[in-house]
Amino acid sequence: MRKERLFTPGPVQIPDRVLKVLGEQIIHHRTPEFKEIFLYTRELFKRVVDSPSENFVYFASSGTGAMEAAVINFFKPGEKVVVVNAGKFGERWGQIARTYGLEVVELKYEWGKSVDIDQLEDTLNKNPDAKGVLFQISETSTGAYHDYKAIGRICKDRDTLVVADAITALGVYNIKPQEEGVDILIGGSQKALMLPPGLSVIWFSERAAERLGGMPKYYFDVAKEIKKQREGTTAYTPAVSLILGLRESLEMLLEEGMENVEKRHRLMSEATRRAVEALGFEVLPENPAISVIAVLSDEAEALRKAMLKRGIRTAGGQDHLKGKLFRISHMGYLDALDHLSAIGALELAMVEVYGKTDHLGVGVKAFQERILGG
Amino acid sequence: MRKERLFTPGPVQIPDRVLKVLGEQIIHHRTPEFKEIFLYTRELFKRVVDSPSENFVYFASSGTGAMEAAVINFFKPGEKVVVVNAGKFGERWGQIARTYGLEVVELKYEWGKSVDIDQLEDTLNKNPDAKGVLFQISETSTGAYHDYKAIGRICKDRDTLVVADAITALGVYNIKPQEEGVDILIGGSQKALMLPPGLSVIWFSERAAERLGGMPKYYFDVAKEIKKQREGTTAYTPAVSLILGLRESLEMLLEEGMENVEKRHRLMSEATRRAVEALGFEVLPENPAISVIAVLSDEAEALRKAMLKRGIRTAGGQDHLKGKLFRISHMGYLDALDHLSAIGALELAMVEVYGKTDHLGVGVKAFQERILGG
Repeated sequence: MRKERLFTPGPVQIPDRVLKVLGEQIIHHRTPEFKEIFLYTRELFKRVVDSPSENFVYFASSGTGAMEAAVINFFKPGEKVVVVNAGKFGERWGQIARTYGLEVVELKYEWGKSVDIDQLEDTLNKNPDAKGVLFQISETSTGAYHDYKAIGRICKDRDTLVVADAITALGVYNIKPQEEGVDILIGGSQKALMLPPGLSVIWFSERAAERLGGMPKYYFDVAKEIKKQREGTTAYTPAVSLILGLRESLEMLLEEGMENVEKRHRLMSEATRRAVEALGFEVLPENPAISVIAVLSDEAEALRKAMLKRGIRTAGGQDHLKGKLFRISHMGYLDALDHLSAIGALELAMVEVYGKTDHLGVGVKAFQERILGG
Repeated sequence: MRKERLFTPGPVQIPDRVLKVLGEQIIHHRTPEFKEIFLYTRELFKRVVDSPSENFVYFASSGTGAMEAAVINFFKPGEKVVVVNAGKFGERWGQIARTYGLEVVELKYEWGKSVDIDQLEDTLNKNPDAKGVLFQISETSTGAYHDYKAIGRICKDRDTLVVADAITALGVYNIKPQEEGVDILIGGSQKALMLPPGLSVIWFSERAAERLGGMPKYYFDVAKEIKKQREGTTAYTPAVSLILGLRESLEMLLEEGMENVEKRHRLMSEATRRAVEALGFEVLPENPAISVIAVLSDEAEALRKAMLKRGIRTAGGQDHLKGKLFRISHMGYLDALDHLSAIGALELAMVEVYGKTDHLGVGVKAFQERILGG
C-alpha cells in the first residue's frame, strides 16, 4: 500500500468534500442553477477578501493567465512599472510586462531575499511616473514573503497601483486588499483554494477600475467579464466544475474563518521551520512566507526521493536552485498530523541519505512543542 | 426523482469513466507519472487527428482562448484574413481578428446558411494577399456545417492558412487536418471530448508552423508551449484533472474508432432530424452539422421548459434567434436510447404546449426507422 500526500506548493491535496463535487455529472453554465452557484461563490469570495466590492472576475486559466490579464487590462505600452524580482515568479512579472511593451524598472534581489521597503520607496521617489508595483506576496520559488501591507502603505498616496500576485497567498494570509491598499490581487485555484488547476481570479480596487482599458485583448478582457460576472454569467464558457468546487472550498475557508486560516498556515510554517532547524537544516528565506518553506540542502534531491518513497511529495528548487533545496507546502487539505508525518518521513529519509539515526524524533519533537504553544 | 440529461452543445454529458478520474485525488504535474500520461494523451490525440505531427498544444482555457491563440500566434497586425460569419462564433472570429488589428474581409451570411464555396473562392481570388480563412466547421449557434474539406482544397495552392474552429467538430467528424488541408484546428474539452470546460487544443500544419511568431503574447504562446509539451511538460501549470480525464475520453473515442464516431453522430443527427420533421418542425440550417441540430419553433422556449421538466436539457437560440429555436446536441455520452428519450420528451412537451396528442409516437417512430436503416 502506498499513499501519496501532496506537500507541493500547487497542486495541493484536495478535500474530499471538493472531490465529491468534481466527480459528479456536470451542469450547464447557462442555467438558473449555475447562475445561483456562481453568484454565491462571488458572495463567498467577497467575504474571503473582506470587501463588498464586485470588482473581481474569474478566468478559466492558470494563474499566469491572470497575471497577464493584470498587465494588459490595467497598463498601456510604454508605461513604467516597478517589478520586484526575487525569484522565478518575480522574473515572470518582468517577462510579461516587457512582452507587452511596458518600461520595467526591476528591483532584483538574490533568490530568497524579500523586497527592501526603503529601497522600493526610494525607487518610487525616483520614478514618480511608475504606474504600478508588480510583486508576489509569497514568492513560491524561494518561500520568501514580500510585505504587501508595507507596499500598500507606501503607494497609498501615489499614482502607483499595487499589483500583488497572491497565487500562493490567497487563502493563506487573511488578505484584505481594500483595507490594506492592494489594487490588483491575483489568485489561482490549485493553491490554498484547494482545487485542481484551471481557474484564476483577479480582484481590483476602485482606483484600478478607473484605469481599466489597457491594450488589445479578447479572452482576458476584465471589463467585458466584470459586466457579465456580476450578473452571474461569463463572456465565455467558465470552468464549470472548478466553480462548483470553489463553492465548497470557499465555504470551508470561511467556516474556519480567514483569521484562523492564516493562523493555521502560520503555525504549520513555524512548527515545520522549528523541526527542520532542529534537524540541522537552514531555510532559504530571511523572511519566510507561511505558504511554503524552502529548506536548503545539497542532498535535496536524495532527500526528496526518499521522502517520496514513504509517501510525501515535496517540490525541489527551481532553475539555479535545482538540487539545492526542497520545498514543503502548507497549503491545501493538510493538517498538523499530516505535517507531523512529513517531518517523520524527512527523518526517515535522512537515515537513508546520511546513514545515521541519532536525529530520529528530534524534528518531530520540535514540531510537537511548537504545536503545543512552545 | 428527477434525472437531467444534457443535450446541450457543451457542456455535455460526461462518461462515468471520466467522472471517476475527475473525482480522484489530484497528482502533481511535474512528476514522471504525469509526464507519462501527458505524453500518452498526445499519442492518443495524434491518432484522433490521424497525423504523426507533434504540432499541437493544449491550453488551460476555454475554446475562445485557443481561437485567440490562433490569431495572435500565426498572424500579424495589418495582415488580411477572410472570415466566414454565419453565426455567433463566426462573428467571434471577426471580433478577435479586429481586436488584434487584422484586416478582416467578412463573408457574412444569414444565420443558418453555410459558406458558399464559389463565393469564397472568388473572394480569395480578389484578395490574393489574404493570409488566412477563419471559419467554424460546425457553427454551434445555428447548427450549420461549413465544408472544411472544400475550403482545404481551394486554399491548398494559395498562401492562405485554413483556420478551422472545430470546437464542436473535433470528436464528431473524423477530421484529418493534415490530409484534408486544415492548417489550424481548434478544439475544446467540454464538447465531443466529453470533459468539463477548461481545456483547449490547437493543432497546426507544417506551413502554419513556418508562420509561428505573430504578435506579443505570453500565456497563449504556441511556440513556447510546443517546445515544452512535446517533452511532456508545459510552460505553466496545466489543467491537470482535465488532462487525466482526456486520457479516458480519447481512449473511448479511439476504442470506438474515429470513423464510427462520425457515423454515430451522423446517425443521431439524421434520425433526430427525421423525428423533428415528422413532428412538423423545420430545422434551421440547409446543410446541418452532425454535432447539434437547430429546430425552428416560435414556441421554442415553452417546449424547452416542458422538456426540461421531464429531464432533457436543450439549448435555446442565441442573440436574435433567442426564442426562435431549440438546439439538441448529439455530442457527449449520449446513445441512441438517450436520443429516443429526448424525442419522447419533445412529444410530451408538445402535448403541454399545443394541447394535442395525435403526434404521440410519431417522432419516436421516425427516429427508430432511421436507426433501423430506413
